[in-house]
Amino acid sequence: MIKKLLVANRGEIAVRVIRACREMGIESVAVYSEADKEALHVQLADEAYCIGPTASKDSYLNFTNIISVAKLTDCDAIHPGYGFLAENADFAELCRECNITFVGPSPEAISKMGTKDVARETMREAGVPIVPGSKGIVKDAEEAVSLAEDIGYPVIIKATAGGGGKGIRVAKTEQDLIKGVNITQQEAATAFGNPGVYIEKFIEDFRHVEIQVLGDNFGNVIHLGERDCTIQRRLQKLIEETPSPALDGETREQMGQAAVKAAQAVDYSGAGTVEFIFDHVNNKFYFMEMNTRIQVEHPVTEQVTGVDLIKEQIKVASGEKLSLKQEDIEFNGWSMECRINAENPEKNFMPSAGKIDLYLPPGGLGVRVDSAAYPGYVIPPYYDSMIAKLITYGATREEAIARMKRALSEFVIEGVHTTIPFHLKVLDHETFVSGDFNTKFLELHEVMKS
Amino acid sequence: MIKKLLVANRGEIAVRVIRACREMGIESVAVYSEADKEALHVQLADEAYCIGPTASKDSYLNFTNIISVAKLTDCDAIHPGYGFLAENADFAELCRECNITFVGPSPEAISKMGTKDVARETMREAGVPIVPGSKGIVKDAEEAVSLAEDIGYPVIIKATAGGGGKGIRVAKTEQDLIKGVNITQQEAATAFGNPGVYIEKFIEDFRHVEIQVLGDNFGNVIHLGERDCTIQRRLQKLIEETPSPALDGETREQMGQAAVKAAQAVDYSGAGTVEFIFDHVNNKFYFMEMNTRIQVEHPVTEQVTGVDLIKEQIKVASGEKLSLKQEDIEFNGWSMECRINAENPEKNFMPSAGKIDLYLPPGGLGVRVDSAAYPGYVIPPYYDSMIAKLITYGATREEAIARMKRALSEFVIEGVHTTIPFHLKVLDHETFVSGDFNTKFLELHEVMKS
Repeated sequence: MIKKLLVANRGEIAVRVIRACREMGIESVAVYSEADKEALHVQLADEAYCIGPTASKDSYLNFTNIISVAKLTDCDAIHPGYGFLAENADFAELCRECNITFVGPSPEAISKMGTKDVARETMREAGVPIVPGSKGIVKDAEEAVSLAEDIGYPVIIKATAGGGGKGIRVAKTEQDLIKGVNITQQEAATAFGNPGVYIEKFIEDFRHVEIQVLGDNFGNVIHLGERDCTIQRRLQKLIEETPSPALDGETREQMGQAAVKAAQAVDYSGAGTVEFIFDHVNNKFYFMEMNTRIQVEHPVTEQVTGVDLIKEQIKVASGEKLSLKQEDIEFNGWSMECRINAENPEKNFMPSAGKIDLYLPPGGLGVRVDSAAYPGYVIPPYYDSMIAKLITYGATREEAIARMKRALSEFVIEGVHTTIPFHLKVLDHETFVSGDFNTKFLELHEVMKS
Repeated sequence: MIKKLLVANRGEIAVRVIRACREMGIESVAVYSEADKEALHVQLADEAYCIGPTASKDSYLNFTNIISVAKLTDCDAIHPGYGFLAENADFAELCRECNITFVGPSPEAISKMGTKDVARETMREAGVPIVPGSKGIVKDAEEAVSLAEDIGYPVIIKATAGGGGKGIRVAKTEQDLIKGVNITQQEAATAFGNPGVYIEKFIEDFRHVEIQVLGDNFGNVIHLGERDCTIQRRLQKLIEETPSPALDGETREQMGQAAVKAAQAVDYSGAGTVEFIFDHVNNKFYFMEMNTRIQVEHPVTEQVTGVDLIKEQIKVASGEKLSLKQEDIEFNGWSMECRINAENPEKNFMPSAGKIDLYLPPGGLGVRVDSAAYPGYVIPPYYDSMIAKLITYGATREEAIARMKRALSEFVIEGVHTTIPFHLKVLDHETFVSGDFNTKFLELHEVMKS
């Protein structure tokens, strides 16, 4: 079993990992940038070391300094959290070379899932449903048009080297498509040095539903049900819940099995998430991507399954076999998470860094708070804006929502703007309450103005 | 359904009830003494009214003022919490006369269970195991000696009008008993105006195990498993857990059934607790008393069953039938509660009222905090000393303990002494960890000196 673990992250996820370590009797080592001297993860860990200046590239992304601290403090493992070095195959590879256990999947699994067209082809071969489209890269506009006739318009043109919303174009007609393929190829060649593009059917009306998986190093993979992350703003998830109000039992079962297949196709080990486009109108789902790390929204799964995902990650990384079988996983009740950010929802979610003067998280039955905030904490403007994850659970969706509203209304965070008023409006919105909405919910409903 | 509810209490239980009301869409009215103007329950309720000076008898025990506020604010119900007016049959009766729903059992049930020898005889008739002893009051020392020969020494002599450790005497020999009966009768006549005494077998080596029950006004009663409250200091519970590490499945089943019988014998309605003396050496249990109210330690039951006991109380009081059947109750995992008091465990638990300068409750998976504290809160010296209930849950007892230690070590309460260091010592004690101990644990082990 891992004896001493370096947490290569900051904020609530660093605190989350340190808590798991403490409960497992594993010594924890925190690392921090110069901006994070007073951070909670620094205070809670058994040891803490500064790894560089404020900029992430010099600190939380600094391979050399992080590996050096791990070596100097005799850590036998590194947990990357999410963001920063999570899903960085090179870093995972470096850990391996340095004889340090990377708490996550193999560099090979990270690579395969991190490259869009490779992931898509791997899934096709594994029999996981993918969005209808080209097999690999299209030669030219002519091939694209012929394919589009088969799959039907609208289609989406994607640069294989693109990402994060860049190198993407939607075509509703043949004319659009011809123009789009040519322009995207030219742009991609310039921007990414790789002109390759592929096309897929464009699904406009969908929900984001994902499956949590857990694998070990012995080929065992199980899933822990879905999370519905349909409430997003600019591709940023804001509210997540499980179960999904849109999934029937059969689809849930099929999606779970597809996720297990996806993970098995890359010999996945540890905790990961297979994200699906769920076409709720036609009750069909398609592979979107796999996140080869722990996710922000993992707590809702923990609440309904009772499984501590971080502990499972650590046990698997230590070389243990999964102690859970698929039939051991039971789902109880409903859980929901609101990401509370230091942003002003009345001013277009403008970031609102600064000092938290008063801080009192809500408590009581069915309320969990994962946060690195405290009274007097100064939120630095350099990193992400999340202050806290507020998680509620109850017997039903109605109870989870009522509890969330109760907990949000109790949450005291003074000194900075927060997204609490935004969440309260969403939770009161009849469309949200109905459970019937898609990823455009926030575009369609101006909740802050209602 | 109840529309507006007055919470006739203070501290964490008032907050707990207000939270349940908010989640149920019930308006809440807080009441407070002059010492509690700044209390959290006052801030969280929809309305709040001062009901008198600091002394409990003038405020939280003031029938007239409380009923007046309820009437003036159009409350249709009063929740008494625990302590103060909970288990006060006269108050429950007054509510009935004023057409206000008392969230608790009938005055008759409260009375029957509140009078020691009546409760004992009611239980005997209902077939609930009671400690072997006299049937009602003993005539004189001679009758006591003859009974003691049957049940065996040591025996305990109890004044029927006594209570709270008063009017109780242990006799190890015939000589002790003759002298004891005579003295206790005389003392009781003087102290309580009632010389009646009865005798029971004295069980020295026992655990305190209790069963949570829920009844409705239609004769339905179910139980929600046990709580083990064996860790006590001067009859004050300090750590509670469920399940009990000492109960086997068969005994658990029998104790649950006995508790249901006990509740049915008094037409019990609402949430209540049947406390048992569990003779763990001989695997036998005996009725101790019934608490006809919600208890401090109710959260551990909520964590393993998923049932919100306060909501159930309110639903039953509203006239609803129990929505849960015995077979619906499932038990998942292990839960533990530590009562964190403003006391100095290094100075014989001397109370430590005053201002909380810094306050940050722990969070994360498996941690629940029920508290009315906040940064800057001044703990008044007039009421009980509990600052917070820290509840953890996990898959196993080991995990619940590890999580409790983690959470206790994170809990920031500065400005007053707390019992956190005491709890950490108990949780580290090998006898506690073994699960094999009795109510004398703290007398036998000087945990604060080790």
